[in-house]
Amino acid sequence: MISAEQALQLVLDAAQPRPPARVSLAESLGRVLGEDVASDVDSPPHDKSLVDGYAVSAGAFGGRAENRLVELAVIAQIAAGEMPVGKVARSTAVRVMTGAPIPEGADAVVMVEQAEWQDDPAGPLGVVRFPQGIQVTAGQNIMRRGASLRRGQVVLDCGISILPAQIGLLAEVGRADVAVVPPPQVAVLPTGDELVDVGFVPGPGKIRNSNGPMLISLARQAGAVVRDLGVGRDDYPQLAALVHQGLHADILITAGGVSAGVRDLVPQVLRKAGVAQVFHKVRLKPGKPLWFGVRRAGVEDQGEAASTLVFGLPGNPVSSFVCFHLFVAPAIARLAGHPRPTAMRVMGRLSDPFQQGADRATYHPAWMEHGDPHAVRLIPWRGSADLRALVDANALAVFPAENRSYQPGDPVECLLLPAGQNSIWSDQAVRRTL
Amino acid sequence: MISAEQALQLVLDAAQPRPPARVSLAESLGRVLGEDVASDVDSPPHDKSLVDGYAVSAGAFGGRAENRLVELAVIAQIAAGEMPVGKVARSTAVRVMTGAPIPEGADAVVMVEQAEWQDDPAGPLGVVRFPQGIQVTAGQNIMRRGASLRRGQVVLDCGISILPAQIGLLAEVGRADVAVVPPPQVAVLPTGDELVDVGFVPGPGKIRNSNGPMLISLARQAGAVVRDLGVGRDDYPQLAALVHQGLHADILITAGGVSAGVRDLVPQVLRKAGVAQVFHKVRLKPGKPLWFGVRRAGVEDQGEAASTLVFGLPGNPVSSFVCFHLFVAPAIARLAGHPRPTAMRVMGRLSDPFQQGADRATYHPAWMEHGDPHAVRLIPWRGSADLRALVDANALAVFPAENRSYQPGDPVECLLLPAGQNSIWSDQAVRRTL
Repeated sequence: MISAEQALQLVLDAAQPRPPARVSLAESLGRVLGEDVASDVDSPPHDKSLVDGYAVSAGAFGGRAENRLVELAVIAQIAAGEMPVGKVARSTAVRVMTGAPIPEGADAVVMVEQAEWQDDPAGPLGVVRFPQGIQVTAGQNIMRRGASLRRGQVVLDCGISILPAQIGLLAEVGRADVAVVPPPQVAVLPTGDELVDVGFVPGPGKIRNSNGPMLISLARQAGAVVRDLGVGRDDYPQLAALVHQGLHADILITAGGVSAGVRDLVPQVLRKAGVAQVFHKVRLKPGKPLWFGVRRAGVEDQGEAASTLVFGLPGNPVSSFVCFHLFVAPAIARLAGHPRPTAMRVMGRLSDPFQQGADRATYHPAWMEHGDPHAVRLIPWRGSADLRALVDANALAVFPAENRSYQPGDPVECLLLPAGQNSIWSDQAVRRTL
Repeated sequence: MISAEQALQLVLDAAQPRPPARVSLAESLGRVLGEDVASDVDSPPHDKSLVDGYAVSAGAFGGRAENRLVELAVIAQIAAGEMPVGKVARSTAVRVMTGAPIPEGADAVVMVEQAEWQDDPAGPLGVVRFPQGIQVTAGQNIMRRGASLRRGQVVLDCGISILPAQIGLLAEVGRADVAVVPPPQVAVLPTGDELVDVGFVPGPGKIRNSNGPMLISLARQAGAVVRDLGVGRDDYPQLAALVHQGLHADILITAGGVSAGVRDLVPQVLRKAGVAQVFHKVRLKPGKPLWFGVRRAGVEDQGEAASTLVFGLPGNPVSSFVCFHLFVAPAIARLAGHPRPTAMRVMGRLSDPFQQGADRATYHPAWMEHGDPHAVRLIPWRGSADLRALVDANALAVFPAENRSYQPGDPVECLLLPAGQNSIWSDQAVRRTL
């Protein structure tokens, strides 16, 4: 049986990023950029004022020893978006708004708060007075043309993630559409005769299908586009038909039907559909029965994905949850163009004792508190069907395969679960509110 | 002028969670639960096997001193989802799959790997042999009915965030739909005559509208439903019409037109539309011109939100980005039902010197490396129009308002930006790959 590390490497080796495609700027949020992007403009496009104030010639204010009151005639005013008007001399000023172009002859802007304006026929727009001793240096409150971006310069590299600031920059350089790596398509197929839909009351021996909704949510959270195939029954033709549909996706996730039971049809059906097994079973708790295979489509397979990664997850929801985070989420990230998809791992200190065995690495539901060090509380759980343990967890504590008695205070590595408010970095766990 | 802390408190005081509404289970991902949820089932619904194996009576294996080979007739087999069949005595066993109900008379399950099956007429389904000295204790590999969930028990409390594990649990307890706090609706309205759309080449004095796409992405990233109002011009009737549309949303964000320039129409238009100013200007860099107000709708305002929070963000994109994270994102979180929305703040150590003044707190684009301590590199930036600095940042370093020369090695608090691969906890910054 292979280790979790070996299994992840085999998964990542089989996962190739999807080819880039053009999408509108709005659709690119969260995607990986599929091209280098150069600026088609200088930014700012002209020397511009960083404040509301008066564009002046710094020379009008003389040396630092000078201590006289300066009074200038205001000859024009310019707002952002307007063309520069007027020509500033040593006796004149132009009123400028934030973002306005700097008029000819001016080399500094004095903030409006530092000046006093008066209606006065000496200037077409009155006069402005500056206090004695005010320091005005050439370039102050002016941003030079091209200081932020220069035309032709690559401003975003192929392979970066497109977040809101990147969206703003793409807009600034005129990219109404952009090449990105598309999100992978993931098909979800829980299996088992014991499953009933959430809207029904389970009869004797039946349970509700919790894996389906949970895995769909996990795949959406990981950034995939999800297709819900419904529930596969322990019936060869029906299961084979659903698997065939699932192979149109980039990733097919099944749940259940991969342990050693005599009626476990899933691996059989997958092999028959041309999915080559890469591994079956991992030295991992929970999640040992994990099955992984790849189907490489031939030329004749029109409409199907170029290749499909197939994860046969165990049927118990805690097992499928752990396997999803360890193997499926990194595969989705790799297909979406992230070069080195990694789980988020942070060291902490155990609050509870734990007895670990040598046969399999254990990933235990845990709550990591933000602190120095981070305290790690193990959540009591009753086996791999106990979803309540996961509801209270924000991390999985990782115990490598070795016979060892962990004591409170021992260091332990945790895999942080992606969360909103549940994260250790937010809500009650954060150091302080703003 | 008020501080950023005072401003945030005023914003949160004005932000009331939206009333809960029922949505389908699939739509509830990422929302805050608006009701207590009790289980309508016992889970598991019956004593069940945790492994593939043989259900036996532990008594058949005798005391610990006993050292004989045990051989039992296999009288039936049960899969998950089937009804229990057969009655186990001390001389018999029933083959059970993972998840199968435990038949009458059995009180333990021995894993299939620990037994050897043989075709033998002594049992209807052969016989199974167990090695000498095998320890079998009552209850082993059995999960008791109701061990995970008991019928009637509240399993999810009102106010928690619905993540994939919660979705799984909601499915298990039969919630096809659920009351959640709906996502707030956010209208986005950048303003200014200097703005041209991304698809056009800006003429002299013009710049592209980068704020609109960036703010729309920020609001989507924060979990809001976004309405794009296009660009507001410096024209009273047109701006008033767009603001009127924006007041149908829970939050209206404008950008530009709030600094002290003579043509800054936005606060005027907002006041005229019945939006009461709460504050204007914050001791903050960048972001000082921030305007915030609230419109409480009367009975006659059908179709409009019960009340609308209005943020007049500065027009420079770095300023609007910082103001969004400090004030708008917490407001969205509060409206979405998160009781104590907080920015994610982590302490680090400066890698660079920094000169801070007493007039305003500074939020400086930074890159925080994962480490012990976390190193904080300040990203060079050229004022509040320089979006490139944000593209390279994963955090904002916080320098409180005080005259102080920061030296490399000094502690500094950082506000972590929500990110994917850009986060300090992922990609190159993570301690090690799985």
